[in-house]
Amino acid sequence: MSQSFAIAVVGATGTVGETLVQLLEEREFPVSDLHLLAGRDSQGHSLPFRGKNLRVRAIEDFDFSQVRLVFFAAEASITLEYAPRARAAGCSLIDLSGALPLEQAPRVVPEANADVLDTLSTPYQLASPSAAATALAVVLAPLRSLLTLRRVNVTACLAVSAQGHEGVTELARQTTELLNMRPLEPRFFDRQIAFNLLAQVGVPDDSGHAHSEIRLAAETRQVLGDSGLKVSATCIQAPVFFGDSLSVSLELESVVDLVAVREALEGATGVELVDAGDYPTVVGDAVGQDAVYVGRLRSGLTDDAELNLWIASDNARKGSALNAVQLGELLIKHYL
Amino acid sequence: MSQSFAIAVVGATGTVGETLVQLLEEREFPVSDLHLLAGRDSQGHSLPFRGKNLRVRAIEDFDFSQVRLVFFAAEASITLEYAPRARAAGCSLIDLSGALPLEQAPRVVPEANADVLDTLSTPYQLASPSAAATALAVVLAPLRSLLTLRRVNVTACLAVSAQGHEGVTELARQTTELLNMRPLEPRFFDRQIAFNLLAQVGVPDDSGHAHSEIRLAAETRQVLGDSGLKVSATCIQAPVFFGDSLSVSLELESVVDLVAVREALEGATGVELVDAGDYPTVVGDAVGQDAVYVGRLRSGLTDDAELNLWIASDNARKGSALNAVQLGELLIKHYL
Repeated sequence: MSQSFAIAVVGATGTVGETLVQLLEEREFPVSDLHLLAGRDSQGHSLPFRGKNLRVRAIEDFDFSQVRLVFFAAEASITLEYAPRARAAGCSLIDLSGALPLEQAPRVVPEANADVLDTLSTPYQLASPSAAATALAVVLAPLRSLLTLRRVNVTACLAVSAQGHEGVTELARQTTELLNMRPLEPRFFDRQIAFNLLAQVGVPDDSGHAHSEIRLAAETRQVLGDSGLKVSATCIQAPVFFGDSLSVSLELESVVDLVAVREALEGATGVELVDAGDYPTVVGDAVGQDAVYVGRLRSGLTDDAELNLWIASDNARKGSALNAVQLGELLIKHYL
Repeated sequence: MSQSFAIAVVGATGTVGETLVQLLEEREFPVSDLHLLAGRDSQGHSLPFRGKNLRVRAIEDFDFSQVRLVFFAAEASITLEYAPRARAAGCSLIDLSGALPLEQAPRVVPEANADVLDTLSTPYQLASPSAAATALAVVLAPLRSLLTLRRVNVTACLAVSAQGHEGVTELARQTTELLNMRPLEPRFFDRQIAFNLLAQVGVPDDSGHAHSEIRLAAETRQVLGDSGLKVSATCIQAPVFFGDSLSVSLELESVVDLVAVREALEGATGVELVDAGDYPTVVGDAVGQDAVYVGRLRSGLTDDAELNLWIASDNARKGSALNAVQLGELLIKHYL
């Protein structure tokens, strides 16, 4: 990694983009030149990087041939518009928006399917999965040699920060209004999110599935390399600022060996296994941390071929920015 | 129901006990004499009933032969101590605490298994299931003739009011402290509940299952009359004051007919089905209502023999007090 690269971050002013820029600095990513890009609305913003304030520039005017690698951390529509331009200019790109189809931009979690990179060629185009899918993959990948999955049931309780700064502001505002006994008029979410749980994240399609759920299921299958895996996914919006919590029930081909599962998770990269009896939460454990936390390991109440667990993960770090930066590190070390 | 009965409510000062007394009045329960009972700690309290303030009396001194029917809405230890005395005095009793074994006090939800009462004899001893099990049974019972369940996966997000007044006070206190940027020292829950999700409710046993989960699974099987049903249950503590939210995924013997499911739920007693595209929440829909709300009906993403749904229910009303009062009405009308 002695070589340095010119890099662009698209969507630098969002919650994930900001974290990404922080991580590029913290992890000493070999950046020679960092270009921060956003739509014209975000012009005038700047972000600190290596002791300087970098101005955010308009993506509309950017010449992608100046950089070798681009992170797309903006909205899906921005990715769809500018990813083809970046590729045409010879850039490799890592998408965090979920906009690109799985066949064109394979989802990669280094702990689970880094070998996918061997099958691609330059300019590389890959994607970081949704935060929930990434957390799930980090925990399930080290168990693949131990158990055969028949079905994954997951209820993912997502933080409002998955909706960006506006989601965070709205939860704080609603909570303050309610505690001051003032009438509530929801602005950002379609109803009260404070002290409530919303049954869906995003608008469902005609079959009733939300995009967040379709994405979680499809990405889990792709990252685990199990295209036939049954995944039942429900994504709900929790009144939590940061961090995703996943309630997971796995159906297995055979009886689960909990001791072996604990051993595998204790030795797994990127996983922090919490002691039996204790349990992790987003606020107390996962937020601000690189690791995905897992606890409440238990077999089924009446089914020994069932494994239940609870996952807490920082949706902006490992769930998005950190995983993307790790993909960038892999690309630079072995492929670019 | 022209006859009136002397009745006692044990645990009258708790969240459920208070709601129960309200419902006895609202529903014109045929009470000739109402005795409110609690431990000595709660002496001096009183509750309004039919325009009077009824004093709460010490259960230690109560002569159960004065009453015909007793509701046990207190802690489990109180039920275990006083239920045998009440029965010995010839009282029928309805337990809301979950303390009595399922074989001795069958769980009954009128919409699902009222016929169990035919198999009992006086003095009757029955129990209202946990709030989550009651809500689940109200929704699943009308579907039994349509579909054969292979497995029920449920993640129940429980309100802090399930822990009584202290749970409610603590969520409000923690939230206020955090919004005022003051350091947080959890008092009632074992850690921060505000803007967080706790992975378990109560202390798990050696196998990792919490009592709330064991109870939810066992009561679901009993109320649905399906002793072999596989139930995977996770109960989590949500930062929500009132109302339980359940994310449910059902595995079925055969392909689900969503139109028939919708029709069955639209016609079902005690169920409020929310339109496709919309969804119910505890704050906006369920709290304060008698009905159990259900929405987000959808088959599996890749499995047509899967049915997913979302349930929102008032844990103090239909989940506890209302179901118990309905059981009392059934007993009085047909059995006592």
